[in-house]
Amino acid sequence: MLAKALLPELWTEILVPVCAVVGIVFSLFQWYVVSCVKLTTDHSDSSPSEDGKNGHGDYLIEEEEGVNDQSVVAKCAEIQTAISEGATSFLFTEYKYVGVFMVFFAAIIFLFLGSVEGFSTKSQPCTYDKSKTCKPALATAVFSTISFVLGAVTSVLSGFLGMKIATYANARTTLEARRGVGKAFIVAFRSGAVMGFLLAANGLLVLYITINLFKIYYGDDWEGLFESITGYGLGGSSMALFGRVGGGIYTKAADVGADLVGKVERNIPEDDPRNPAVIADNVGDNVGDIAGMGSDLFGSYAESSCAALVVASISSFGINHDFTAMLFPLLISSMGILVCLITTLFATDISEIKAVKEIEPALKNQLIISTVIMTVGIALVSWIGLPSSFTIFNFGTQKVVKNWELFLCVAVGLWAGLIIGFVTEYYTSNAYSPVQDVADSCRTGAATNVIFGLALGYKSVIIPIFAIAISIFVSFSFAAMYGVAVAALGMLSTIATGLAIDAYGPISDNAGGIAEMAGMSHRIRERTDALDAAGNTTAAIGKGFAIGSAALVSLALFGAFVSRAGIQTVDVLTPKVVIGLLVGAMLPYWFSAMTMKSVGSAALKMVEEVRRQFNTIPGLMEGTAKPDYATCVKISTDASIKEMIPPGCLVMLTPLIVGFFFGVETLSGVLAGSLISGVQIAISASNTGGAWDNAKKYIEAGASEHARSLGPKGSEPHKAAVIGDTIGDPLKDTSGPSLNILIKLMAVESLVFAPFFATHGGFLFRIFS
Amino acid sequence: MLAKALLPELWTEILVPVCAVVGIVFSLFQWYVVSCVKLTTDHSDSSPSEDGKNGHGDYLIEEEEGVNDQSVVAKCAEIQTAISEGATSFLFTEYKYVGVFMVFFAAIIFLFLGSVEGFSTKSQPCTYDKSKTCKPALATAVFSTISFVLGAVTSVLSGFLGMKIATYANARTTLEARRGVGKAFIVAFRSGAVMGFLLAANGLLVLYITINLFKIYYGDDWEGLFESITGYGLGGSSMALFGRVGGGIYTKAADVGADLVGKVERNIPEDDPRNPAVIADNVGDNVGDIAGMGSDLFGSYAESSCAALVVASISSFGINHDFTAMLFPLLISSMGILVCLITTLFATDISEIKAVKEIEPALKNQLIISTVIMTVGIALVSWIGLPSSFTIFNFGTQKVVKNWELFLCVAVGLWAGLIIGFVTEYYTSNAYSPVQDVADSCRTGAATNVIFGLALGYKSVIIPIFAIAISIFVSFSFAAMYGVAVAALGMLSTIATGLAIDAYGPISDNAGGIAEMAGMSHRIRERTDALDAAGNTTAAIGKGFAIGSAALVSLALFGAFVSRAGIQTVDVLTPKVVIGLLVGAMLPYWFSAMTMKSVGSAALKMVEEVRRQFNTIPGLMEGTAKPDYATCVKISTDASIKEMIPPGCLVMLTPLIVGFFFGVETLSGVLAGSLISGVQIAISASNTGGAWDNAKKYIEAGASEHARSLGPKGSEPHKAAVIGDTIGDPLKDTSGPSLNILIKLMAVESLVFAPFFATHGGFLFRIFS
Repeated sequence: MLAKALLPELWTEILVPVCAVVGIVFSLFQWYVVSCVKLTTDHSDSSPSEDGKNGHGDYLIEEEEGVNDQSVVAKCAEIQTAISEGATSFLFTEYKYVGVFMVFFAAIIFLFLGSVEGFSTKSQPCTYDKSKTCKPALATAVFSTISFVLGAVTSVLSGFLGMKIATYANARTTLEARRGVGKAFIVAFRSGAVMGFLLAANGLLVLYITINLFKIYYGDDWEGLFESITGYGLGGSSMALFGRVGGGIYTKAADVGADLVGKVERNIPEDDPRNPAVIADNVGDNVGDIAGMGSDLFGSYAESSCAALVVASISSFGINHDFTAMLFPLLISSMGILVCLITTLFATDISEIKAVKEIEPALKNQLIISTVIMTVGIALVSWIGLPSSFTIFNFGTQKVVKNWELFLCVAVGLWAGLIIGFVTEYYTSNAYSPVQDVADSCRTGAATNVIFGLALGYKSVIIPIFAIAISIFVSFSFAAMYGVAVAALGMLSTIATGLAIDAYGPISDNAGGIAEMAGMSHRIRERTDALDAAGNTTAAIGKGFAIGSAALVSLALFGAFVSRAGIQTVDVLTPKVVIGLLVGAMLPYWFSAMTMKSVGSAALKMVEEVRRQFNTIPGLMEGTAKPDYATCVKISTDASIKEMIPPGCLVMLTPLIVGFFFGVETLSGVLAGSLISGVQIAISASNTGGAWDNAKKYIEAGASEHARSLGPKGSEPHKAAVIGDTIGDPLKDTSGPSLNILIKLMAVESLVFAPFFATHGGFLFRIFS
Repeated sequence: MLAKALLPELWTEILVPVCAVVGIVFSLFQWYVVSCVKLTTDHSDSSPSEDGKNGHGDYLIEEEEGVNDQSVVAKCAEIQTAISEGATSFLFTEYKYVGVFMVFFAAIIFLFLGSVEGFSTKSQPCTYDKSKTCKPALATAVFSTISFVLGAVTSVLSGFLGMKIATYANARTTLEARRGVGKAFIVAFRSGAVMGFLLAANGLLVLYITINLFKIYYGDDWEGLFESITGYGLGGSSMALFGRVGGGIYTKAADVGADLVGKVERNIPEDDPRNPAVIADNVGDNVGDIAGMGSDLFGSYAESSCAALVVASISSFGINHDFTAMLFPLLISSMGILVCLITTLFATDISEIKAVKEIEPALKNQLIISTVIMTVGIALVSWIGLPSSFTIFNFGTQKVVKNWELFLCVAVGLWAGLIIGFVTEYYTSNAYSPVQDVADSCRTGAATNVIFGLALGYKSVIIPIFAIAISIFVSFSFAAMYGVAVAALGMLSTIATGLAIDAYGPISDNAGGIAEMAGMSHRIRERTDALDAAGNTTAAIGKGFAIGSAALVSLALFGAFVSRAGIQTVDVLTPKVVIGLLVGAMLPYWFSAMTMKSVGSAALKMVEEVRRQFNTIPGLMEGTAKPDYATCVKISTDASIKEMIPPGCLVMLTPLIVGFFFGVETLSGVLAGSLISGVQIAISASNTGGAWDNAKKYIEAGASEHARSLGPKGSEPHKAAVIGDTIGDPLKDTSGPSLNILIKLMAVESLVFAPFFATHGGFLFRIFS
């Protein structure tokens, strides 16, 4: 029997929920601060950051303009309501369909897992340690189903709350932009933090409570307990899939449709209130980038925790019933909340944005600060939360691991995340040469812009892949699949900060849209544009994190699946595995073809409707008549609900079909293939899209001699840049970010159904042999 | 001791060279027929297909126009000379650089392989059968180096001859187009056949002679003999890499540059003689699509033969010294030449093209006919060339295989090739809905065109991957890596026909260019355009074959490498392999980023030069002054030579670096990763490009109500289609087709260096452990 962790079990039981509650309270406090920006017309300058405590108030006040124009406030409030209602209505429609799926899939989980031992209620010998007795497969079926539903509900809640916060904050950011770019930044960033902390803390709390409740039934059978808990990851990720795909199609159909008619044909500015699709476009940012991304990162977090827990339960932590060490993944996340809390203060209270050029560094500093502090945090948690030496299950054997080795596993994941973030910034920010080269290639037209943009995306894959490869090598070598799982957790440990800077982007984008629609001055629009340009980069960084962590998480889940399915090796040199690899590597292409085509078709419908309105509503172009926003919202809603089903089915059914008909070896190949191919496409797609968007913004902003030589808006190079931006939209916001859900989801689904496949899988091969 | 093959050894020794010679004679005969179209001004209507034997002469003669205009003939001859000289000069420059590389790399092969046993001249126990004595490693080093040089020279020769034939045929096709589309088709197709048969027969003959010469030294040591022969594959493929990349950059820099200024800015037609880049563009078709593709398919053929031979040498064929069975791969290729010969007669003599719409079916029939007859041919060869039962080396064990099982392996590869061909045709021909949908999306501009085109490319991957996966599964299950190698050979067995229809495309493209430049009538240009549209599809089909066979070949080479390197399993669940997979899957992206950026940069230079000439040469636009073609040719030449080096180094150095520093397990991962990821990108890139090209041609031709609603030339949808076409150029002609060389070449290089890696590999890990 090995030594136990320093931290007593009781302390663990207290610390985890306390940290979660601290996170929630902090989130509520930030919300309160944001809410002090009044959106009612009895507006009385009560902005809280106005107390002049940092002495720079004068400088910012000089910049103020139009703060007392009450009609603008009313207009902002009106637009905000329209966006919020559109988003809420879409999400409710989406959840209605997804709810049906959830019930259906919960039934499948119950039936498939229950059938493993013919719905017997008798206890059975455990899978890994035959000398012990474990709860029956029926219990796993029941509890997996429950945790699936819990994961799904938490994911839905995360997305919904995120959307609510973002639609609450967008108009407030616009109003603060009247007071200067710094004030607007703080509002947008605080709102992002509300979402970040709420999601991180909520995810942790629900998982913690679920484990403790399940433990009442399972008692000492931790193998069964944590096997059931994996359903939580599956639930979270399957909702995330529909959120990302549905939201992604919604937002890009509206965006592409609005741009093609408005910017290209009618030559009116982005977010012009005369464009009928403008509300749908702004709704889209909230349902796609906010709700979808929130569900996605929650899914990654839930899955990496589950992957670590399930491996730990069959390692010495589980065998020795060392609860503190067992909950090490949750301790990491708890520490992460505290670290991100401190980090947030650096942006909101310790420093202040005084100029446009300080926005990007401020966001980048958030990443650096949280990573540095978290490294210390991980060291602390590894020291008190782990025995100095323990064993980890490693495909049939137990591998001895030291606590400092596990610290290195978590830390390598954390720092790999930072590197991925920086590389993404380098390739997507218009402060560096790659995007400037792409902008320059617009000189010779859209074709060269697209060629250079695609090449940039391909190139941007190189360093992130090396970073992921190194973290896998280190963590895998030290602590097998447990190491990979905690490396993923390390990358996600600063999720609250990651989400905050990620959510900041769409909020700023919306704020710009509201400024334009409310007819606010050019100067204010310039400020929100500056916020938005930084937001494009942070959105790309957020996607980089999501993809990197998805790669690690999927590998860990894949490892857990292989262990559970009872395979010893996944040998590339066997026909079953090699065809699985090939077909698996093809799936991201199939999936991308579906989602891109969906965006294209939905955008075409939107274009027709927008054209119809411009042609049939008299006075629309002159601004004397109001467009019919609702029809455009309805087109986006209907299209995205209809179009999210085929790609959703592809992802959800593939593991079931492959596992049942072709068996676990082929399924292993499919999982590995989709992982190694999907990561590359996802990174290149999201960076290409981000680069095109910022190349366009670079020309529009005209901040340098070079940029001015390409502009202004409406010039030939600018038109070429707009085409690139439009192509990039589905790449960066629909197909790219959905791919990391594809790889995670197939892996976690395989893990949940592993007992079923191990018993009933490989139907076809059994017929023929 | 198992039974031997029915066919006596002496017969095998006679049959193989006889078939090769038959192929060469047939090729020369076709050349003679093509040469009867006179390019001198004393032209006297001596076209051989004019004997009216099929009774349709009247119909075609009615269409004749301008046959007696001698000045056109002179002009065509002049343009042809310019193209031919440009192509020859480029290839000589390329070969000069490549020659330096060849000498350098030959030295590396000799030194690395010689060092395995410290340059000892003593015989050693064999690798696989320790009880026998084999020739020293130094002999392998010497003979591998020789066969590398032989392979390289044969590859260079193949490319060069192909180019010569194509530049000989292009103007003749143009002249025949005056007599009708059917006559022009036959000339273009015959010229393609010259190239196809010459390459197939030449490759077979050189390999046959090399084996017999090496056998004089090696005697009974077949293990060493066929290990050395793999150098032939490496030589062939490394030249192919430079040919494809260099030629691909050349052709697309010229094409994109010519189009961007000519078609987009100056609004002059494609191939207009006023465009300074027009000669470079036409030269490019010959050095990229013809010489590059010829080297590429020769490489595939050489490698699949080598992969099969090296596995056979350690199977019962080699152990029992059954020479006929050993040469089974060469017998398949010999049979292929005869089958393709019969198939060609169907196109040239048995049926006749009377209308534009018959061109594509005629080419498609070639594929079907050759596949059907070849199936019988394979059955025959399998029956007489193989023992009824034999054993095949299967990663350390011997697997018993029946001759009908091996027949199925070859046949499944052959038919998978046909399926890939058909799917490619469906996705790239404008006769079907996918390309028409892409054309339709041009209505809303270039952005939707690109989105739909990318989605089409992604979607077109699905069925080919299933076809490849099924052939791998069948052939792998029946006969391990030998099965996969002969499946690849099966796919390539109709290479002569494949090359013929493939080379037909660029020849027609050139013919169109010459017609335009020689100022021939609109009707003739329409005829060559029709030939060219079919050529785009056949080019895509050819690429499909090249990629499909490359996938199978690489897997077979990979298997041979793993056997030779002494690895038992390539387990995805080990850190070394999994990071190899990830990094390997990234390499095609890195490589594509390099090649696409190269095309982009070279095109920008070309654009500047073309613009400069239009601006500074008075009377150029009016057609009174001649442009400076030579400078554009020089820009393309310099750019492609300079830019082909980095991607070439990436491919050539990766296996050496990974193998030496990280060892054979990681290298296995890299090979598998690049294989499964590269295949997908290659297919999607070449189909996307082909679809865009034909979507543009669909609008231009205006052959249907729908097409006319999008046109005519110069309309907004047409402009959008031109942008798509330009983006597709580097995808379909540079980065896409180079990728199959990447995956093959890394595999064959690893195999050649396997003895070295097995002895000295994994340097880094040995330091740290």
